[in-house]
Amino acid sequence: MTPPRTRLLLSLFTVLAVPFVGLAQSPALQQVFGYRDFTQQAKWDAAFMAIPDAKLAGEHLKILTAEPHWASSPEDYKTALYVADKFKAAGLETSIVPYKVLLNKPVSILIEAFDADGKKLMSGPTPEHVDPAKYGGDPGQNDPRILTAFNGFSPSGDVTAQVVYANYGTLADFKKLASLGISVKDKIVLVRYGENFRGVKVYIAQQYGAKGVLIYSDPADDGYFRGDPYPKGPYRPASAVQRGSVQFLPIYPGDPETPGIASTPDLPDSQRIKNPVDLSTIPANPLSYKDAKPILKALDGPDVPDGWQGALPFTYHLGGTGKVTVHMHLQQDYARRTIWNVIGKIEGTDPAERNDWVVAGNHRDAWVYGAVDPNSGTAAMLETVHGIGDLLKQGWRPRRTILFASWDAEEEGLIGSTEWVEQHAAELNHAVAYFNTDVSVSGPNFSAAAVPSLKQFIREITSEVPSPKGGTVYDQWKKHEEGNTETANHRDKSSKEKEDDAPIDNLGSGSDYTPFIQHLGVPSTDIGSEGRYGVYHSTFDDYNWFIKFADPTFVYEQEMARIFGLEVLHMADADVLPYDYQTYGKEILSYIEAAQRHAAKDNLKLDFTATLTAAQRFAAAAAAVHTDQANPPADAAALNRTLRSAEEAFLNPEGLPHRPWYKHLIYAPGEYTGYEAVVIPGVNEAIEANDATRAQSQLAALTEALNHAADKLDSAAK
Amino acid sequence: MTPPRTRLLLSLFTVLAVPFVGLAQSPALQQVFGYRDFTQQAKWDAAFMAIPDAKLAGEHLKILTAEPHWASSPEDYKTALYVADKFKAAGLETSIVPYKVLLNKPVSILIEAFDADGKKLMSGPTPEHVDPAKYGGDPGQNDPRILTAFNGFSPSGDVTAQVVYANYGTLADFKKLASLGISVKDKIVLVRYGENFRGVKVYIAQQYGAKGVLIYSDPADDGYFRGDPYPKGPYRPASAVQRGSVQFLPIYPGDPETPGIASTPDLPDSQRIKNPVDLSTIPANPLSYKDAKPILKALDGPDVPDGWQGALPFTYHLGGTGKVTVHMHLQQDYARRTIWNVIGKIEGTDPAERNDWVVAGNHRDAWVYGAVDPNSGTAAMLETVHGIGDLLKQGWRPRRTILFASWDAEEEGLIGSTEWVEQHAAELNHAVAYFNTDVSVSGPNFSAAAVPSLKQFIREITSEVPSPKGGTVYDQWKKHEEGNTETANHRDKSSKEKEDDAPIDNLGSGSDYTPFIQHLGVPSTDIGSEGRYGVYHSTFDDYNWFIKFADPTFVYEQEMARIFGLEVLHMADADVLPYDYQTYGKEILSYIEAAQRHAAKDNLKLDFTATLTAAQRFAAAAAAVHTDQANPPADAAALNRTLRSAEEAFLNPEGLPHRPWYKHLIYAPGEYTGYEAVVIPGVNEAIEANDATRAQSQLAALTEALNHAADKLDSAAK
Repeated sequence: MTPPRTRLLLSLFTVLAVPFVGLAQSPALQQVFGYRDFTQQAKWDAAFMAIPDAKLAGEHLKILTAEPHWASSPEDYKTALYVADKFKAAGLETSIVPYKVLLNKPVSILIEAFDADGKKLMSGPTPEHVDPAKYGGDPGQNDPRILTAFNGFSPSGDVTAQVVYANYGTLADFKKLASLGISVKDKIVLVRYGENFRGVKVYIAQQYGAKGVLIYSDPADDGYFRGDPYPKGPYRPASAVQRGSVQFLPIYPGDPETPGIASTPDLPDSQRIKNPVDLSTIPANPLSYKDAKPILKALDGPDVPDGWQGALPFTYHLGGTGKVTVHMHLQQDYARRTIWNVIGKIEGTDPAERNDWVVAGNHRDAWVYGAVDPNSGTAAMLETVHGIGDLLKQGWRPRRTILFASWDAEEEGLIGSTEWVEQHAAELNHAVAYFNTDVSVSGPNFSAAAVPSLKQFIREITSEVPSPKGGTVYDQWKKHEEGNTETANHRDKSSKEKEDDAPIDNLGSGSDYTPFIQHLGVPSTDIGSEGRYGVYHSTFDDYNWFIKFADPTFVYEQEMARIFGLEVLHMADADVLPYDYQTYGKEILSYIEAAQRHAAKDNLKLDFTATLTAAQRFAAAAAAVHTDQANPPADAAALNRTLRSAEEAFLNPEGLPHRPWYKHLIYAPGEYTGYEAVVIPGVNEAIEANDATRAQSQLAALTEALNHAADKLDSAAK
Repeated sequence: MTPPRTRLLLSLFTVLAVPFVGLAQSPALQQVFGYRDFTQQAKWDAAFMAIPDAKLAGEHLKILTAEPHWASSPEDYKTALYVADKFKAAGLETSIVPYKVLLNKPVSILIEAFDADGKKLMSGPTPEHVDPAKYGGDPGQNDPRILTAFNGFSPSGDVTAQVVYANYGTLADFKKLASLGISVKDKIVLVRYGENFRGVKVYIAQQYGAKGVLIYSDPADDGYFRGDPYPKGPYRPASAVQRGSVQFLPIYPGDPETPGIASTPDLPDSQRIKNPVDLSTIPANPLSYKDAKPILKALDGPDVPDGWQGALPFTYHLGGTGKVTVHMHLQQDYARRTIWNVIGKIEGTDPAERNDWVVAGNHRDAWVYGAVDPNSGTAAMLETVHGIGDLLKQGWRPRRTILFASWDAEEEGLIGSTEWVEQHAAELNHAVAYFNTDVSVSGPNFSAAAVPSLKQFIREITSEVPSPKGGTVYDQWKKHEEGNTETANHRDKSSKEKEDDAPIDNLGSGSDYTPFIQHLGVPSTDIGSEGRYGVYHSTFDDYNWFIKFADPTFVYEQEMARIFGLEVLHMADADVLPYDYQTYGKEILSYIEAAQRHAAKDNLKLDFTATLTAAQRFAAAAAAVHTDQANPPADAAALNRTLRSAEEAFLNPEGLPHRPWYKHLIYAPGEYTGYEAVVIPGVNEAIEANDATRAQSQLAALTEALNHAADKLDSAAK
């Protein structure tokens, strides 16, 4: 039975839904972009939204997170079967799709530190543990299947070296150390989580000649400085470790041995590469602040620069003096392991557009229990599928083919999604959208990232969905963001554009949309509902934490299921694809102008004329086609194909300099950021590197793409 | 014998001084504002600057800080004798001037905290102590004459109450608590040092109905978060307490019983008031972070708002739930005690201007040893006097009368200076300048605060003095401030105007310039050389700390002695008083414009027309008189008197609303800041309080003052 609060919300929703149904008779409904007449869609939307069930979402979550289910483990396979069952029950044509991919599993991990006299300062990793006598403890912490804290894709290694503290391990941090005369060559670098993707920390440390990397969670960023630690509060306790992949994600994601091709079980070994360039050659391991504390405390040497001090109760020093020696002994079991995506399909009815897929996905594998990351998304998606299954029973069929995907091995490097995308590149070349959700619910605050052409689409959909806080999700989202500058998520939001409307991030990386948008140009979105999420990638991201601090009555699960479902329904059924190229054009123009200012500031002589002209052409073509989209021809199939092809025009078949897998010229994860998007990356990273020749040639590629995209839109405009 | 580094500096100085001497023959010297011909002054300057001796300054400091010398103690009297001896030796007409003033001495201080079960959490104040086995410890920490940590002018009291944490105890912080529904009524408020003057924290807490106040030093602001604690580094160790006065300084300073009149020993009791409004009625006491930690750790209740978390290793909460009870038992011995200023005089030679005094002062009393605060200033001043004494022996005599002052009981509330100023108000009405130095040397970075008319004066003088870092003090000062936004001093610098030149603060309060400028309108400056000063008002502000972390070879002592001396020499001997009213005029105009914007933002209907017109009149008059100052008449005495009278015109005999002792209409310590200046305080505080009637009447007073000042300058301009 649905908890009281949810019932209240359902009735709230009913009231709120009326205007849409009522409006179906009026021409005002033409305002829902993409529809000639929203009447019928409004009815299906209402019918759909009545189904996703908070209590059932909670049940899915409880079952999915009952055991640690690291990718390729038997428990992971059990979750695949559960998801496949639910897909089938909803009437989806379902298959479990295996791949054979490189994964490391820790056999033994030892990190120990010694002072100058050889006295042991610490030995870890300490098992994650909170006191059962206090605030109820944590019921899941003693499961023997919990893997010790390790980094995905760290090599095995046995290194002993002095320690240097390098703050967040950003490029600026390593440059700062160098400017202070502190070398990290042949040292073990101790860095804190935050600011950039952990694989980037290792990437830079390796470039600077470090022998190994320890990555710890500082309580200033992720622990008691933020709020009460679990189980008293939602924040990271002293022993909790942030696991995670240290793959060089900005080089390429997926199975390291098969960039660009799919690691199907039958792929011969000869097609797998030997020394993947997206993997570190130096060992790396995460640490809790409990384990990092004795190391940091014993470091001497110069005081840290401004902004490097964390919240442990002593003065931080840079080290490198020989006072502290760390021994890292990492024994990793590297093997090609089987992982399992689950794919559920609903065939479209329109012969002209049924091959233009709408894909929606979420990953299923977890470092440990993964209550928030990722199974809050899986639970929501299963309720989306539940709702769509109900529509199918009511006789509804989509115009375009819908695929739901439950990805595996996302945590190691977006592997399940990347291999599947690489396998289906031909079909996906004309897929109309990919909708992602990963850290779906950690609290009550909706957030989204998207290509600009789908930003307004998300705002429209969230205006249809009631919020557990009252009003619509859109209203609450806008209100929250107006009063809030802080963000709780692990994604870096510094790139978020300032806008009057509810803000939407650019797509960087760190989840399964990356192969879709950045490798193939499938217009994508990523959504979540955020909160005070202090247990990311630790054992404590479990059901117990979730029901205490994220969503006790699963009403935000229900909300996300509804939003995710409306994204799919609208994109599958719209008369005209609701891409907003006007916003896209404006944003691209602003990126180019910003790059021009940056180049001027750095005295880099570059000619932006042709690129700016092309961007203005694209913006003008976008405005013209927008009018056509609002008044589409009777048969919009050709228009739709052309609309879709404009995004494809942003791909450069050669890819980005140094990283050919990334083909999108407008968005990529930054080489030195990882999570955060770099816009017009070819141009901006060349400017950042002060390389005028490369910048000019990247400007030429961008100009060509913009003209190509403008041509496409021009050809569609009447 | 002078240490090697100092000898190098002396020769550096000799080289640097040559251009001045050489330039004495050229007309370029007219550029030293205030002199018709700088030739002779340049020679005296050079002769003077050769005398202040680093080693002797170190000896003064060692002797002055050999014992704790709290105001009115026998040890304080010994330092008065030492200073008087040095004054006499230099040829100054010297007297020790006693006052009888109200002071409290702690008899017994007990702060204890209990949890809900009555279990004792702490009992203090813990004696200040660092481990002698580590880094040499501290030789002075066990002296039985060290007074236990207390607040000057806290009443005695015995209160027991629940605790609420109120961040820095600013007005905004108390408003925030109220907005969160947390009442401090009848509670003991725990606040951290920083942001405002400690007396203001108590002032606001009392207004909000608190029963008592505990003020602690958080390591985030003042401790290990900043750098290594003493004795390893210069920052505050866990047990160190910031003592200090909690007088309501923004109401009035000086002896609380005698506002406006001097507490001479023979002042009858009938002239002393009974219930001074500048004293708190609720008890207050400082705590170390060692003692505050168990209280803060045990507090529960709501999480603290953004920005309230400190650097102790747990999550802070607001408290007020009854979980923690504090008992404060303060027994203070209040009595009228004798304090001793030392005044040394050099009679001026010019019959027309000898009564226009130049006063230079520094306080001598300390909470404990006072190596930096204040005796780094006393040592520097004694070397200034040493240098001026040498000039006297060489036959030099000043045009105007010079007075050097060694103030007592500054720590309790600028008492020695205030009483003396009140006693000599008639003479000081036409004193041409007061030069202050208090925390004179805590490190190598020159800083200054001044009335705008003396900002350029300080820049000129520092251009004459060599810096131990090479080049001139002015060059190093400008260079340091360009690369530095942080400040180490206890003065709040947020009000520092942004300027291209070396920045100079406005005069707020917290040292002995206050009675001069803000009560009588004597143009004033305050100078210091700052560093990583982490032992402010603790036992550890001693000779041992000083020679480890502030100025091991006393070369900055020498530098400050030279700058202080040149200020005195130039002001005593200038042909024309070197007041720069042009800068003053510009600054006043900018204050009025800022107030106008503030009022507009708050929708306060105010008419600024007359005030702006008057300010423009004043600025125009200042420009005209500036030309005259550059080409003065043969007899400049009348011009000088008029120049001086312009500053006097800024006084309002009625004083500021609610605080009539403060008469200056351009600068006052903020009612809710204390240290930091509020500019055009009558106007701005009325706007802040949203009181349009008061603001308009204060604008009228300001208009009158500006017109009056402009009349004065107009009368001087030819």
